[in-house]
Amino acid sequence: MTDTPLPSPRTSFASDNYAGVHPEVLAAVVEANGGHDVAYGADSWTERLGEVMAGHFGPAATVWPVFNGTGANVVALQSLLPRWGAVICSDTAHINVDEGGAPERMAAIKLLPVPTPDGKLTPELIDREAWGWGFEHRAQPLVVSLTQTTELGTCYTPEEIAAITEHAHARGMRVHVDGARLANAAASLGLQLAAFTSDVGVDVLSLGGTKNGALGAEAVVVLDHDALVGGPDAIRYVRKLSMQLASKMRFISAQLLALHDGDLWLRSATHANAMATRLRGGLEAAAAAGRAPGLAFTQATEANAVFATLPRPAADAVRERFRFYDWDEATGEVRWMCSFDTTEADVDAFVEAVVAALAG
Amino acid sequence: MTDTPLPSPRTSFASDNYAGVHPEVLAAVVEANGGHDVAYGADSWTERLGEVMAGHFGPAATVWPVFNGTGANVVALQSLLPRWGAVICSDTAHINVDEGGAPERMAAIKLLPVPTPDGKLTPELIDREAWGWGFEHRAQPLVVSLTQTTELGTCYTPEEIAAITEHAHARGMRVHVDGARLANAAASLGLQLAAFTSDVGVDVLSLGGTKNGALGAEAVVVLDHDALVGGPDAIRYVRKLSMQLASKMRFISAQLLALHDGDLWLRSATHANAMATRLRGGLEAAAAAGRAPGLAFTQATEANAVFATLPRPAADAVRERFRFYDWDEATGEVRWMCSFDTTEADVDAFVEAVVAALAG
Amino acid sequence: MTDTPLPSPRTSFASDNYAGVHPEVLAAVVEANGGHDVAYGADSWTERLGEVMAGHFGPAATVWPVFNGTGANVVALQSLLPRWGAVICSDTAHINVDEGGAPERMAAIKLLPVPTPDGKLTPELIDREAWGWGFEHRAQPLVVSLTQTTELGTCYTPEEIAAITEHAHARGMRVHVDGARLANAAASLGLQLAAFTSDVGVDVLSLGGTKNGALGAEAVVVLDHDALVGGPDAIRYVRKLSMQLASKMRFISAQLLALHDGDLWLRSATHANAMATRLRGGLEAAAAAGRAPGLAFTQATEANAVFATLPRPAADAVRERFRFYDWDEATGEVRWMCSFDTTEADVDAFVEAVVAALAG
Amino acid sequence: MTDTPLPSPRTSFASDNYAGVHPEVLAAVVEANGGHDVAYGADSWTERLGEVMAGHFGPAATVWPVFNGTGANVVALQSLLPRWGAVICSDTAHINVDEGGAPERMAAIKLLPVPTPDGKLTPELIDREAWGWGFEHRAQPLVVSLTQTTELGTCYTPEEIAAITEHAHARGMRVHVDGARLANAAASLGLQLAAFTSDVGVDVLSLGGTKNGALGAEAVVVLDHDALVGGPDAIRYVRKLSMQLASKMRFISAQLLALHDGDLWLRSATHANAMATRLRGGLEAAAAAGRAPGLAFTQATEANAVFATLPRPAADAVRERFRFYDWDEATGEVRWMCSFDTTEADVDAFVEAVVAALAG
Repeated sequence: MTDTPLPSPRTSFASDNYAGVHPEVLAAVVEANGGHDVAYGADSWTERLGEVMAGHFGPAATVWPVFNGTGANVVALQSLLPRWGAVICSDTAHINVDEGGAPERMAAIKLLPVPTPDGKLTPELIDREAWGWGFEHRAQPLVVSLTQTTELGTCYTPEEIAAITEHAHARGMRVHVDGARLANAAASLGLQLAAFTSDVGVDVLSLGGTKNGALGAEAVVVLDHDALVGGPDAIRYVRKLSMQLASKMRFISAQLLALHDGDLWLRSATHANAMATRLRGGLEAAAAAGRAPGLAFTQATEANAVFATLPRPAADAVRERFRFYDWDEATGEVRWMCSFDTTEADVDAFVEAVVAALAG
Repeated sequence: MTDTPLPSPRTSFASDNYAGVHPEVLAAVVEANGGHDVAYGADSWTERLGEVMAGHFGPAATVWPVFNGTGANVVALQSLLPRWGAVICSDTAHINVDEGGAPERMAAIKLLPVPTPDGKLTPELIDREAWGWGFEHRAQPLVVSLTQTTELGTCYTPEEIAAITEHAHARGMRVHVDGARLANAAASLGLQLAAFTSDVGVDVLSLGGTKNGALGAEAVVVLDHDALVGGPDAIRYVRKLSMQLASKMRFISAQLLALHDGDLWLRSATHANAMATRLRGGLEAAAAAGRAPGLAFTQATEANAVFATLPRPAADAVRERFRFYDWDEATGEVRWMCSFDTTEADVDAFVEAVVAALAG
Repeated sequence: MTDTPLPSPRTSFASDNYAGVHPEVLAAVVEANGGHDVAYGADSWTERLGEVMAGHFGPAATVWPVFNGTGANVVALQSLLPRWGAVICSDTAHINVDEGGAPERMAAIKLLPVPTPDGKLTPELIDREAWGWGFEHRAQPLVVSLTQTTELGTCYTPEEIAAITEHAHARGMRVHVDGARLANAAASLGLQLAAFTSDVGVDVLSLGGTKNGALGAEAVVVLDHDALVGGPDAIRYVRKLSMQLASKMRFISAQLLALHDGDLWLRSATHANAMATRLRGGLEAAAAAGRAPGLAFTQATEANAVFATLPRPAADAVRERFRFYDWDEATGEVRWMCSFDTTEADVDAFVEAVVAALAG
Repeated sequence: MTDTPLPSPRTSFASDNYAGVHPEVLAAVVEANGGHDVAYGADSWTERLGEVMAGHFGPAATVWPVFNGTGANVVALQSLLPRWGAVICSDTAHINVDEGGAPERMAAIKLLPVPTPDGKLTPELIDREAWGWGFEHRAQPLVVSLTQTTELGTCYTPEEIAAITEHAHARGMRVHVDGARLANAAASLGLQLAAFTSDVGVDVLSLGGTKNGALGAEAVVVLDHDALVGGPDAIRYVRKLSMQLASKMRFISAQLLALHDGDLWLRSATHANAMATRLRGGLEAAAAAGRAPGLAFTQATEANAVFATLPRPAADAVRERFRFYDWDEATGEVRWMCSFDTTEADVDAFVEAVVAALAG
């Protein structure tokens, strides 16, 4: 392609989307090539994907591949809301802080964010914004949007989600789950995907693929078609007008098939979670041995993210070798993410780098 | 991936996006994999793509990869328009008829469509809607959007585009080109890309990759940054809030590099055009020999599309073997598209099928 | 208020909204003052308005006062459309050409305009855009919007509207009527309002008051609540979020009551229509007598507007005494509007001015 | 108008928009009637209003009458923001909680609400959301919106506003003031309007008239035209496309002239504030005498609102005679608003009713 030498990037704990493509996914893309097929989703890969997802989520589920997570969320929320509906979410939710305002700008949706200690909503927290139905001056709260696993690396149990869906449905609200890291939740909980989605009342789901090892593939999965405003075909039109309908869709569906028609989705997530556990364990052991002065953990490590605080000079020193994000510059909180291709050696080198920097 | 046998689709003249991925593009995607890289465009492939596009369009050009053509158009138009701006376009333009209303729905843009005989705007046709500046009751015409090649398979000359940009600029309007098939125009004109874009006053461009052999890759190319409303960073924000920012962007940039860092873009388009020429030539020869009763051509074949009318029973008979679209059911007009992977044998078989059906 | 002398404007045939307020309407506003009343529509004037409108349109009708005609149209159309719906209208419709793009900008609605000779849609004209349901690439045509009387001063008969609503409903489309001049239609047809709205299948109506003699008062009237997307309360929320909910609503309702709780609406419109008839008759008589060289009429005069062409120097000469609008600068077509307060003397003076100018 | 007897509503402390129209304003509306005048703002009343407002706010100020406060705010904010801009505001701001989501729904604007103890932003509070410029994943904070007086009845000093505008401007942000009760602030501060707006760096203002005694009249006042995105004509187009352009605008301008071409605006606000002071003073005296058990005040009374908590049975007892709103049902907080037409006798009767209910 080019003989310009491309620099080798530093190993990264910045985000699971700094990773490349899982080799099995890439092989599936290559395999899907060759010959013409119908564009826009009327191809055999997409048809097969529907069967596979019905296997995961139950026969009523339908699947709508899209390009990215923001697209999945904005398509899903539009399909659940009349023009006057608003969405209750955690104030750390991706839809609130990481999508450049796409829900408001592209879909004219008002968000009602609620502060949470750990990224997780509860019926009590939801009730801080779940009021005012019938009062036209208030944007009507009609959807609750959860993130699983959360942006803070925590994981809802099926019981917690069931309590929320019951609470929401009793008040006329629908429940959306932003599942950009849904696979990590399944791995964390040791449960199949349905156990904490379709089985416990979730209405519509954004199912992530990219952070799970895909090149670029997400999907909206509709679990209850009665939840869609304007009829069961809502997603078909909303996806298109939201600029999320791929012409050569077979190549997106092929990625999701590579992950989900088998257990690659779970293997990848289990590995990423294990690497985060190893990272935290290594640092906790160092701390117990007095080798990590100034280090503290700020959230439970229930999936593939570790949140911690450490002195800025130490953080800066580690950054010379490894990329990662500040989470809260004011408090010195940082986020370390692991992905399907993070190795034990990467983790161990990183732990040693942190220990060395803290000793510094 | 799956052992379900996937049916082999019929050879298709339906659309250039029924084709798969060009092997050289797919190889580039595979090559881009391996190791971590920074997400969201701060990677070396995207950096290199900027250099390559500056080579094509001049040093001032900047390139912003996106997922699909609708996304490219909607991002480009938003960046060119204040909230009160409207867009003059052909009534057959993709933005007007094929994007599910995305410009209106996602970007709150009013289109001012103008009927054209051949898909091509002219200064005179533009003037049918280019009026009313300063009159607040009228959506202000501030952008002219051309499609090159047009939806009717025709191609603007550089002189025609220069006349339009001069006309538009003199009236305070900017010019956008929807270049989903820009490569086909270059092949048709025998010119480099700059000759009918940056050299003749085009302000912002949607550059197509998918129909040119990519898996799924398009880009907004800004040729004049003074045209952007709200400052030169407009595209950065608009792309993100328009849900068109890929996390693993290197894989999109790698596709565009595979096409444009070399001559694959031109080879592919030249071939597709040649196949359309062969198709038309074959049918014209048959017609000249009296073997194509009822067949007529409705547009010039200047790129990779052939538009024709034929009796419906004949069209239906051909469709048993080859997919293609009706263009105008009322008149019996159909569209036959060729792509980078259409073979001479495909064309010849298709010509024979049409002749046989017309004889039928 | 001020001792600055305010210039007396020239008598106007520019628009029925150049007129002031009918004295009976103004008296009603004054009468509504005094004492506190509940804001936002829970007042007794608005309650009474509901009863009066049910008298006009049938017991199922509900009425929702708003500020202006653009607001009424945009609220009405939003309530009838899912996010993917589009509106078929005449290309001369107010929503298409006179609202600054408000339907697109405020409500993300795509319009599908159809050229018409006289401002009136027909089933045949509607069918030029009524197609493509289920095809996600096309904005779905779900509403037909008529204007009664039309922007060209013509008037639909009940039979014509019934044919359209039957045609639309049979295809799953709803019918909106922009009735900014609905009173003029009733006066022209010699019929009650229901006869060409609720009785013939119209679903939702924008009912004008301002051009009929109000200070500033319009209303959305819902005739079939099953037509509303998202439930029968749609208008309540859509009106508020569309910035069309008046706090001191009793003063808007009082205006509409002054017009409609009695026959002021009809008296005013009948007078305005009669003045247009007189204007046209006077000029036709002059023409028959050879005193109006170069004058021609371009539309039937069925309500309170006269459309004509005359040489530009003559038009300019008349404008020194009377305001009016050019309708089509290219052809020299002008529009002359009469209102509730146009006098016979105004008309006669105007006719003489035109005759004098043509003699020029 | 009608001989249906209309019930006399209970005297109200619910909202300053439950009041009627000040007689001097109504007289001005009546006076503006008679004869034709140019529609849409090219009339002599609107021209005079421009001169009057330039007197209040300085010669650079331009004034744009609109229908209501939500309209003023949404027009103002749109004119200050590119498509990617966000607005920092108090979480109690009218734009965030009382406009049915109009900023998000009509203008695709993301709000960044900040909790405040007293409804007032400070540089420190602003900084909780004022970050992330250049980071495309974050909606860009480009406007700070204050409310003066606040929704909690408190009032910014000129120094406080100056500190905010300086802070905002230094970071590239513009400052909007929602002045639905700006007159009450002037009365509270004993200052002219410019002293805490144009003189201290405010860029664009929503100027209230309705709560100050108008029938229905507000305006956007532009203080710094350089702040407008897309050029100095931004408001002209944005007002129209936002459905806030009145056809018979002279009647809106006449209301604002009645208030501001003289001192009616200040007299009315001073009176309303004095009534709130009297209300609070009466209750504080009762409390000091041990006659108001269970009553507590929750905010300073700096304008025309009193916020208090009292036991629910007492509140319910008072409501049998006087309307008012719960502010926070959970804590028993209520809001009592006074208006230009609240009388001393109303206040005294209300105080006695509260005392009696608390004794109850």
